[in-house]
Amino acid sequence: VTDSGADLGALTQGAEEALPEGALGKQLRRGEPLRVKLGIDPTAPDIHFGHVVVLAKLAQFQQLGHQVVLIIGDYTARVGDPSGRDTQRPVLSAEEIETNARTFTDQAFKVLDADRTEVRFNSEWLGMGTSELFGLVSKVTVAQLLAREDFRKRMAEERPLSVLELLYPILQGYDSVAVRADVELGGTDQKFNLLLARDIQQAYGQPGQSIVTMPILPGLDGTQRMSKSLGNYVGVTDPPAEMFGKLMSIPDAAMGDYYRLLLGEDVPAGEAVEAKRNLARRLTERFHGDGAGEEGEAAFDRVHKRGEAPAEMPERSLEDLGLAEEAGGEDSHVHLPALLAALFELSTSEARRLISGGGVKLDGEAVPPEPLDVPAGDVRGRVVQVGKRRFARVL
Amino acid sequence: VTDSGADLGALTQGAEEALPEGALGKQLRRGEPLRVKLGIDPTAPDIHFGHVVVLAKLAQFQQLGHQVVLIIGDYTARVGDPSGRDTQRPVLSAEEIETNARTFTDQAFKVLDADRTEVRFNSEWLGMGTSELFGLVSKVTVAQLLAREDFRKRMAEERPLSVLELLYPILQGYDSVAVRADVELGGTDQKFNLLLARDIQQAYGQPGQSIVTMPILPGLDGTQRMSKSLGNYVGVTDPPAEMFGKLMSIPDAAMGDYYRLLLGEDVPAGEAVEAKRNLARRLTERFHGDGAGEEGEAAFDRVHKRGEAPAEMPERSLEDLGLAEEAGGEDSHVHLPALLAALFELSTSEARRLISGGGVKLDGEAVPPEPLDVPAGDVRGRVVQVGKRRFARVL
Repeated sequence: VTDSGADLGALTQGAEEALPEGALGKQLRRGEPLRVKLGIDPTAPDIHFGHVVVLAKLAQFQQLGHQVVLIIGDYTARVGDPSGRDTQRPVLSAEEIETNARTFTDQAFKVLDADRTEVRFNSEWLGMGTSELFGLVSKVTVAQLLAREDFRKRMAEERPLSVLELLYPILQGYDSVAVRADVELGGTDQKFNLLLARDIQQAYGQPGQSIVTMPILPGLDGTQRMSKSLGNYVGVTDPPAEMFGKLMSIPDAAMGDYYRLLLGEDVPAGEAVEAKRNLARRLTERFHGDGAGEEGEAAFDRVHKRGEAPAEMPERSLEDLGLAEEAGGEDSHVHLPALLAALFELSTSEARRLISGGGVKLDGEAVPPEPLDVPAGDVRGRVVQVGKRRFARVL
Repeated sequence: VTDSGADLGALTQGAEEALPEGALGKQLRRGEPLRVKLGIDPTAPDIHFGHVVVLAKLAQFQQLGHQVVLIIGDYTARVGDPSGRDTQRPVLSAEEIETNARTFTDQAFKVLDADRTEVRFNSEWLGMGTSELFGLVSKVTVAQLLAREDFRKRMAEERPLSVLELLYPILQGYDSVAVRADVELGGTDQKFNLLLARDIQQAYGQPGQSIVTMPILPGLDGTQRMSKSLGNYVGVTDPPAEMFGKLMSIPDAAMGDYYRLLLGEDVPAGEAVEAKRNLARRLTERFHGDGAGEEGEAAFDRVHKRGEAPAEMPERSLEDLGLAEEAGGEDSHVHLPALLAALFELSTSEARRLISGGGVKLDGEAVPPEPLDVPAGDVRGRVVQVGKRRFARVL
């Protein structure tokens, strides 16, 4: 562990807040490895670049000699919310949790050093008896919890807030007690929970953790937070071409956030498109290794810059797609929306909208809104393209 | 079980509310024995006449063939509130709870028929696992709980309300699920909890209990609720003379409540003092058996009516009281406040106030405010009287 003041500068670089004021600096000056906690929700195991913001900050702590503690919230995931009021918390089986936890850590270790990461499941300590649980919840007041923005809002709007939901942040806080966290990281939306965990540690006679919150990365749309359910994300397992292409699609205005939060740098001077290529190349390289950045870029250019179809694309026969029978006879026709639906996992109504909006091409030529039924021979052997980046060849 | 409409009239007589409207009548018309619940706090096991109001109503249910279920809240008493914020909930050991439960039931069976009473300890079902507990608390919303008057008030006044305290009424409600209560009784102050229990039963797919709330009996002061901590109570184990005397001390204005809630009658016409004697005689008789009413009345009359000291009273020597040393020498003096404090379990400052208020007599003569130190010979062998009913002889 190094103990220079420079560490503090590096560790808070890009962070939204480090609280309480001065606490992290004091901890670093002790010159001992800190235990740095991150809580993981195993109901959504796939890591996207929004997670990477926090993971990259954790990696920085590791590089300076500190110990990262990843806590898989298996206990709460197994409980879920039986009232069914909170649709965001599905109840998972033990097997699903195990699988998801492995998925998460496998992906997280693309950013973190596995050897300096302690992975814990919170069922280890939250399977306490009810009397211990009562001891825990007695240490927190209702007012403390209702200070949380979303809770307060739901109460004010008279939307149901179950008592169980009130318990979750307390349990999450107890995780910090159990692993004796010195620091906890999270997105700015986690600030309340992280500070509550600090209070709970102190109620148990531990020194309270300091907290570091990271800004929320905007999604590919540049406005809403990156999230899987909004579809505006880049997954760390996305193949090089897709990753590169997605990153090239962010609005120029969002580039500052991406540079700062993912690369820890400012946007370089010069043309915006070059800066974006640089960003996409380096991030693709980070997740796919040497040469992957250039590979992704080449694939992107083939499609986007020169208007060409990519070198490789899925090939499907009408027979495979279950469209063979109707395509069998001599005058047989293929219903284009059904073809698109089968090729690209769309609904037929989505496919119909795409056609009428001019977003579908056959061998590079826009498909007219009518007719929707075309001779089978008109599609066999040709490249179907939807939007800018989805291609398939029909056999 | 009888099933006449007359039962409903009898069972709601004197009650504050029977809710939901019409529910109890419907239950009675089924003609089957109802399970009638009362929850008991084992931290305060001594039964006073305030409890008798509810117990007498339970006894009425029994007389009509219904099953009473007394629930000893041992689980919650063992949990207490470790935050120490709620001083009203001491943590009890298993032994203390056992003893208190026996004390309570022994006393309750002076009113209830033991053979038609099921006694249960809620640790039987509340020792559930945390995941079952989470299932339970997910069925209740925070808003539901904060509708409780005292909770709302504490929140509004920004006084701490621990999350544990929020859980208690939920646990108490689950008791109704566990014993499949058809009816729950309680004081009017319990209305919220009893209705919440109904909701919780329904969340578990049970028919919700109906509830019957009884008015709160005023204490001997006629204004505040009867309670041990306020010292304005008549205990069911108070000896006949004390019970009779205490009942004679209630203000005339409170007599209506006492008659209605304890005897189920209106105050008889005639002189107030005679009505009060009748009340005191009958209640003393109820708790001490045949003849006890007259016995209590005779003792009362000896002291109060004819101004005489009672036939028997405690006798204590100055030596026993630890006042011997200072009383040893020839000119030795006794500090009167210390003497009163030792005889009657007062603080010396209370004793001093009683003396200066003229409330202390020696052999029937008021003790003057000064001097407070009197020769030992002036108190030995004499009767010390505090207020109207407390006597002791100094040896």
